[in-house]
Amino acid sequence: MTIINDQQGMALALEWAAKGMFITAPNPRVGCVVVRDGIVIGAGHTQAAGKAHAEIQALADARAGGHDVRGATLYVTLEPCSHHGRTPPCADALIAAGVGRVVSAIADPNPLVAGKGLARLRAAGIAVTTDVLQAEALEMNIGFFSRMRTGLPWVRMKAAASLDGKTALHNGQSQWITAAPARDDGHAWRARACAVLTGIGTVKADDPQLTVRAVETPRQPQRIVIDSRLDIDLQARILQDVPVWIVCAQADPGKCAMLQSMGHDVICLPNAAGKVDLPELMRELGRRQINEVHVEAGFKLNGSLVREDCIDELLLYLAPSLIGDAQGLFDLPALTSLTGKRTLAFHEVKQIGADLRILARFC
Amino acid sequence: MTIINDQQGMALALEWAAKGMFITAPNPRVGCVVVRDGIVIGAGHTQAAGKAHAEIQALADARAGGHDVRGATLYVTLEPCSHHGRTPPCADALIAAGVGRVVSAIADPNPLVAGKGLARLRAAGIAVTTDVLQAEALEMNIGFFSRMRTGLPWVRMKAAASLDGKTALHNGQSQWITAAPARDDGHAWRARACAVLTGIGTVKADDPQLTVRAVETPRQPQRIVIDSRLDIDLQARILQDVPVWIVCAQADPGKCAMLQSMGHDVICLPNAAGKVDLPELMRELGRRQINEVHVEAGFKLNGSLVREDCIDELLLYLAPSLIGDAQGLFDLPALTSLTGKRTLAFHEVKQIGADLRILARFC
Repeated sequence: MTIINDQQGMALALEWAAKGMFITAPNPRVGCVVVRDGIVIGAGHTQAAGKAHAEIQALADARAGGHDVRGATLYVTLEPCSHHGRTPPCADALIAAGVGRVVSAIADPNPLVAGKGLARLRAAGIAVTTDVLQAEALEMNIGFFSRMRTGLPWVRMKAAASLDGKTALHNGQSQWITAAPARDDGHAWRARACAVLTGIGTVKADDPQLTVRAVETPRQPQRIVIDSRLDIDLQARILQDVPVWIVCAQADPGKCAMLQSMGHDVICLPNAAGKVDLPELMRELGRRQINEVHVEAGFKLNGSLVREDCIDELLLYLAPSLIGDAQGLFDLPALTSLTGKRTLAFHEVKQIGADLRILARFC
Repeated sequence: MTIINDQQGMALALEWAAKGMFITAPNPRVGCVVVRDGIVIGAGHTQAAGKAHAEIQALADARAGGHDVRGATLYVTLEPCSHHGRTPPCADALIAAGVGRVVSAIADPNPLVAGKGLARLRAAGIAVTTDVLQAEALEMNIGFFSRMRTGLPWVRMKAAASLDGKTALHNGQSQWITAAPARDDGHAWRARACAVLTGIGTVKADDPQLTVRAVETPRQPQRIVIDSRLDIDLQARILQDVPVWIVCAQADPGKCAMLQSMGHDVICLPNAAGKVDLPELMRELGRRQINEVHVEAGFKLNGSLVREDCIDELLLYLAPSLIGDAQGLFDLPALTSLTGKRTLAFHEVKQIGADLRILARFC
């Protein structure tokens, strides 16, 4: 393909960034393409943490193809880094490579980088263009930006309901409200998250694994169970094989020790009411370099998380069905005035198979 | 504009049909354009019942512009009629006009016409092409097709809810769940219906007029109130000025006489349980030439209509908000198995202002 303008070059770089969707955490997903005379001569994306960044991958790809990168234009979906982290600064590599121009989608929110990468390129005489497809680049790393800017992960709550807002029958039956395409799509959202969070109610009711199965991924998100009183059954499927973080408000020493001996991490974060301090948990997850949290919980925990303003967006699958008198989505108290409603904004709506996928963000 | 193919000609004819959206009932909305050498020389749409059909309007429009319609191509969104109704047959008018070719979107479902119009044109040596943009043409007159094919109107139930499926607080407050653009859009759907149907619960709670106000229309839909025991207050706003159809199961003679003396029509349709026989009401509305029914009712009547399979589609406005413990959409009983759920299919989803408009059809 021929790149005829910066938007097109950046759109291609974003496609490369998406290839790193499931693997780069806690680093951002970054894509990079190298273009000379309108021809793409190299491309790459960030690898797993500690391995090569997108720019280095793209330059290596160009050279592997026998191309001269000197004077070429490099499109990158995030400002090149200027600091020594686990890898050397990309800005230095671009200067050393002699590229002629760098087009960047968005400034790095990391206070260690923030504009310094672009400044270093400019100081070396490289032409720099910024803010091309900025909004798309922000979406690609919405959790990384959230964590860098606020210390908090981006928290996405997934739920599936009928068109009348019901998630399960009173007898607990909830399987297959939505169809297979929506359930598979839900696994892709799990896979992109750094962590999948649920509550003890869901563990008891459904005994879920909460692993990514419907899509290919080399990395499973960290699973987290909120379990105030450490009620979890040691035989629960989620506790087998891979370590889980269990968040409680009362750390019974015996149970705690048993869980730890199985390899699990018990985090005790009580609030004044003796429940798990959910906002503090989110801060802790930010400290643990969790960018995106994917919540799959039930009526009660969903309600608590919404009430305590811990949710950034809803990922709601609506099935084209009516269920009637049944379990609703969120345990929220009755209002006396509609002015007390929680307000969101629709971000994206898409049909997935027979179901509807709604992404709505809290205002 | 230049018409370069039949799809384009028919798309323009459908735009003309839409101009009759609020006025043609009980007749279908039909549009027609006359094209010669790719140039549109005339266009028209069906007028109010008893007045000119689209074809006649379009031919007159062409002649008024000084154009010769002989040999021209005529695009019409419904098969031209061949029978003497309140107006003479359009097929005869087209033959007399000497048009060269007729392109029709869909056969007339009226058993008095059904293929006879096109046959008459062909017999007169006019080239005929059929089924161009057939699906779009069916949508334009979905109620007319329903009534002609089944004797029943197309029944559309409008509701507005929060993202968690709530329509009103327990204290009754329900105003402004959705924003002004969605409410105005709802008036356009009212305006296209032949009848607006509500229940005594809504009349008592909200005292609505149920007239079309937010959009311009020369015709108000017939308003219908389901009121099993004739409980309606004679001072109710809906009873003032314009006659209403009141559907009951117990026709108290005194109350009935009072309502009739105000000009209203009382229809007594009891079922075995002493409630209004809703399926029989739909048949009665079909007999009364109601093509599209627009339901705006509350939790209970909505539930009854869904339970008794009287609804063809939901027109659901979802606001980007969460309300919590509050009134739901439909009074439907608890299921013991999800196999008992009511199944629909999403037909169209569109953002209207800040809200979402979902059109979903029962399967």
